Amino acid sequence: MFDVLSPHSEPSSLVAFAGSRIDRQSENRPEDCVEQALRRDNVHLFAFARGRLAMKHEEQILDPLFAPHEMIDLEPDWESAILLGYEKTGEPRIAVPVGIDPDAALDHLKFADGRTLMRESLIGETLLGEFAQASSLLTWNRSTRHCGRCGAETRMEAGGYRRRCLSCDTQFFPRTDPVVIMLTVDAEGDRALLGRSPHFNPGMYSCLAGFVEPGETIEQAVRRETFEESGIEVGAVRYHASQPWPMPHSLMIGCYGRAESLDIARDEAELEDCRWFSRADVRAMIEGTHAEDINVPVSGAIAYRLIQDWVDWPEWEEKR
Amino acid sequence: MFDVLSPHSEPSSLVAFAGSRIDRQSENRPEDCVEQALRRDNVHLFAFARGRLAMKHEEQILDPLFAPHEMIDLEPDWESAILLGYEKTGEPRIAVPVGIDPDAALDHLKFADGRTLMRESLIGETLLGEFAQASSLLTWNRSTRHCGRCGAETRMEAGGYRRRCLSCDTQFFPRTDPVVIMLTVDAEGDRALLGRSPHFNPGMYSCLAGFVEPGETIEQAVRRETFEESGIEVGAVRYHASQPWPMPHSLMIGCYGRAESLDIARDEAELEDCRWFSRADVRAMIEGTHAEDINVPVSGAIAYRLIQDWVDWPEWEEKR
Repeated sequence: MFDVLSPHSEPSSLVAFAGSRIDRQSENRPEDCVEQALRRDNVHLFAFARGRLAMKHEEQILDPLFAPHEMIDLEPDWESAILLGYEKTGEPRIAVPVGIDPDAALDHLKFADGRTLMRESLIGETLLGEFAQASSLLTWNRSTRHCGRCGAETRMEAGGYRRRCLSCDTQFFPRTDPVVIMLTVDAEGDRALLGRSPHFNPGMYSCLAGFVEPGETIEQAVRRETFEESGIEVGAVRYHASQPWPMPHSLMIGCYGRAESLDIARDEAELEDCRWFSRADVRAMIEGTHAEDINVPVSGAIAYRLIQDWVDWPEWEEKR
Repeated sequence: MFDVLSPHSEPSSLVAFAGSRIDRQSENRPEDCVEQALRRDNVHLFAFARGRLAMKHEEQILDPLFAPHEMIDLEPDWESAILLGYEKTGEPRIAVPVGIDPDAALDHLKFADGRTLMRESLIGETLLGEFAQASSLLTWNRSTRHCGRCGAETRMEAGGYRRRCLSCDTQFFPRTDPVVIMLTVDAEGDRALLGRSPHFNPGMYSCLAGFVEPGETIEQAVRRETFEESGIEVGAVRYHASQPWPMPHSLMIGCYGRAESLDIARDEAELEDCRWFSRADVRAMIEGTHAEDINVPVSGAIAYRLIQDWVDWPEWEEKR
């Protein structure tokens, strides 16, 4: 039952933001877990300035791990520090919002958001995975400062994994939004449906995507979103891979959909173009040799994984 | 690429709460969409009393669909009414919280929560799917009455699919919590790992489950949760099915996990028992003939789907 027919046994292991091996210990954390971790000799910290990761910049090296004494000039907000967990070595990892202006030109510090970190491969996969956890949790904590039920202030508990209302005692837990992202292919499997959102980088085409709604399965969400955005009816749906996506705190659920129709009726508010592309077209887009100078997302994106694996599928099947 | 090797081509189509075929039109809704829908002759409403669905009870028939004039005695809170969407016939569906006491003994009305509706099959699959959407959205609206950023009041927009802060203008969207639920099987595929939580019905054993955390893939969540609850290390993970779970607003993501170890170290806070069961054992639990008088979840639960399909797998493979 584990014979999955696909070019990779676990495509989710090949996407960006999924490289963390941290032991979160998110349950059963003592109330002073952040303070305890900060007292350890081997503690290291991530610093976030307006949501962007701070990195020490020396010669060609970017290093996002700060020792506590290196934080002083960054104006850390210690009250909002969260515990990510522990490395296998026992080393604690903490994330702290800092007050320093990330737009100020500084020789020894560089700042980057999640998309830039991924696109430019500025830090390794393990650190990028820890960034994803940190960024998602810091954003959620910041947007849950008050109780949704009564409006009173909440306070952080469990090192950032829980908040509690100071007035009505309601507990809140981190939010993760499931999103379906799908490559829809025609019945023969020879053409794939890609769209272009107005906010994409120039020339980029990608998979369609949308939030899973209350009361639907993953498969239903794939069919609904594809139909809403492109007018294409999808029959069979197959799960392929998933990816944590910390902009701000999503779980991307990557699927293939088999089209049961071909005529595109594009949602003009969402997409400025939507087309069927042949495998040769898409291969050229990946390689940067397409005649129209169009392209696909970078290799860390789950959309790339869906697209590349579809391109490789026939060759992989021949080799089996 | 759509050759999925499994006893069912889409197991997600066989679970409870997934039967809605409503056209949500959740984007591009006019601001007066609830009022517009209420003016239609063919509108029908679901009424929720303290989270429990109201059903008209006449002879042997339970009917959860109310006409507007039938709502008066139920004390509807029209301000909190939400639009679910439209049936294929054009019939609008609305959900309304009502003030009537669901514990008062009434001849002509019955009230039931989601678990009871599913367990006792009180309403059909389509209505149960619409209940899932309604219940999730009403709960989310109720818990988002205030802005998490500034604490000011929010108001409902888009017929219940969005809320907006009256002070800082932040927008909020419905919350859906992804949960992994997994049947872990041994390397030979002959035994499955089931656990018993202290809050389960007497005698029931089920799959392990837990929330997906920020910064992890579905496969990583399956491995982490299985290890945390049982001490069993999981290698390969395979997605099988998903289910909307409106208690309060989750998306269950059902997977199989292949165990790489056998010695159980149970999390005593989460589970009061956790064991390996043979296929013969589990078949007896499903049929209600197990010597220990133990059982598995009802057939609408995704845990049942994972368990039953594992039991059937060898027979299905022989037939292929």
